[in-house]
Amino acid sequence: MTFAFDLATAVHEQQNGEYSGVVHDGWDIRSNANGGYVMALVASAMRSASQRQDPISVTAHYLAPLPPGEVHIATEVVKRGKTFCTVSAALHQNGREAVRVIGAFGEAAGRNEFSTSLFHVDIAPPALPPMTECSRRPASGPGFSMGLMDKLDIWLHPDDTGFARGEQSGKTIVRGWINFADGRPIDTLALLLVADAFPPPVFQVMTVAGWVPTVELTVHVRATPAPGPLRCVFSAHVVQGGMFEEDGEIWDSTDTLVAQSRQIGLVPLI
Amino acid sequence: MTFAFDLATAVHEQQNGEYSGVVHDGWDIRSNANGGYVMALVASAMRSASQRQDPISVTAHYLAPLPPGEVHIATEVVKRGKTFCTVSAALHQNGREAVRVIGAFGEAAGRNEFSTSLFHVDIAPPALPPMTECSRRPASGPGFSMGLMDKLDIWLHPDDTGFARGEQSGKTIVRGWINFADGRPIDTLALLLVADAFPPPVFQVMTVAGWVPTVELTVHVRATPAPGPLRCVFSAHVVQGGMFEEDGEIWDSTDTLVAQSRQIGLVPLI
Repeated sequence: MTFAFDLATAVHEQQNGEYSGVVHDGWDIRSNANGGYVMALVASAMRSASQRQDPISVTAHYLAPLPPGEVHIATEVVKRGKTFCTVSAALHQNGREAVRVIGAFGEAAGRNEFSTSLFHVDIAPPALPPMTECSRRPASGPGFSMGLMDKLDIWLHPDDTGFARGEQSGKTIVRGWINFADGRPIDTLALLLVADAFPPPVFQVMTVAGWVPTVELTVHVRATPAPGPLRCVFSAHVVQGGMFEEDGEIWDSTDTLVAQSRQIGLVPLI
Repeated sequence: MTFAFDLATAVHEQQNGEYSGVVHDGWDIRSNANGGYVMALVASAMRSASQRQDPISVTAHYLAPLPPGEVHIATEVVKRGKTFCTVSAALHQNGREAVRVIGAFGEAAGRNEFSTSLFHVDIAPPALPPMTECSRRPASGPGFSMGLMDKLDIWLHPDDTGFARGEQSGKTIVRGWINFADGRPIDTLALLLVADAFPPPVFQVMTVAGWVPTVELTVHVRATPAPGPLRCVFSAHVVQGGMFEEDGEIWDSTDTLVAQSRQIGLVPLI
């Protein structure tokens, strides 16, 4: 079986670090390709160029919205080091650069390797009710569609879903479970998608929900995920001056933190 | 009066986005230029290329240690947008690339502009004793030097200083006040330096203190700092698989969050 995520992030090397790929339909929020999906697509080419296994630290600057269609990804290996290979990449669509990415690629640690080095964790996975008591995020709402929610199963904590009914909680946090709808295991590449797939916690204080464009997203992969759905928590502590940050933690079924993310975005003018 | 930071981050355009600069002596930790200082130096060239006022979101990947000496900074304006100008830059020393940076430049909000948009802040500045009850970080220790501490005055919270005496607190947090030693106001460019100037909180759990190389550092400037010393808190929640993250918050004298930072680094093998 070929999983949808693998099709949607497939890239083909044309020559010397230049890749072609396709922004697939159905990975969108309100018809723009999701930023995490776009990061995963570009990182797919970067990973190939790096000849390493996993994205470790990836940063994307989003320059233009991406509708479905063919794209060109030019990679540049900045440094081929012992621990990491650092790669830069530019994604163009119809001649226009839409995303610039830089990342370090290497081998993500597995949980059983943690004992070989210093270990200190002072945070814990979010406390979530079982999936059956959470609300599955729908692929459409009143007057809009979110194709991405056909690809991902996201079950939100019942306390965090009021924004979708216009009942903002005032607490800028969104928690939930996540898995691929088609059963694909979530690997380190897919963590880049997961890091941007939940509804923005800033929706908990925005009376007018809308498009919140990401300026920059950084994802750090901290471990290879164990099988099973992941638990996520996203929060936004400072919304001021027209911008907000959003911090994510992604935890696997063994209570291991597998990724951290932070993005900065623009608050729509109200 | 010319302040030391302005001299140390001065760049000169040679041609078409290519800048020369100098990694100045005395901005080091154990003879390697501090990562925050290096980011500020590169951002100084990027800011010039952007023709905008402030760094807003800047990410650096560190590829090689930087001793003092001349450097070459090649900037590339990726997109000149309405809100931001996105710039990429590569710093070379002696023909070798040592740092790759990407950043968005624009105009940082002032506190008095917060009312024009959504405002929600659910974190607060760290509770610090007055400077006179804190410990000034010295410019040298047993067998090592930290030239940076001649340039910056950092007063640490008394509960967070045990690591320097080999008494790890076990709590991966470091809090303190910061100011330039020569009285230069801390502006948005200097926030990039401040974001990497404190002792790493991972020192609170490392029995062998040493060099902790930064792989990647991202700084988001959230507001223009008001005059006066800044209060900072740096924390590391997850140290595993040979890596740690470090999150920073930088607050000004009006209790405004002026910058957030996150870096990921390597734990030395023990």
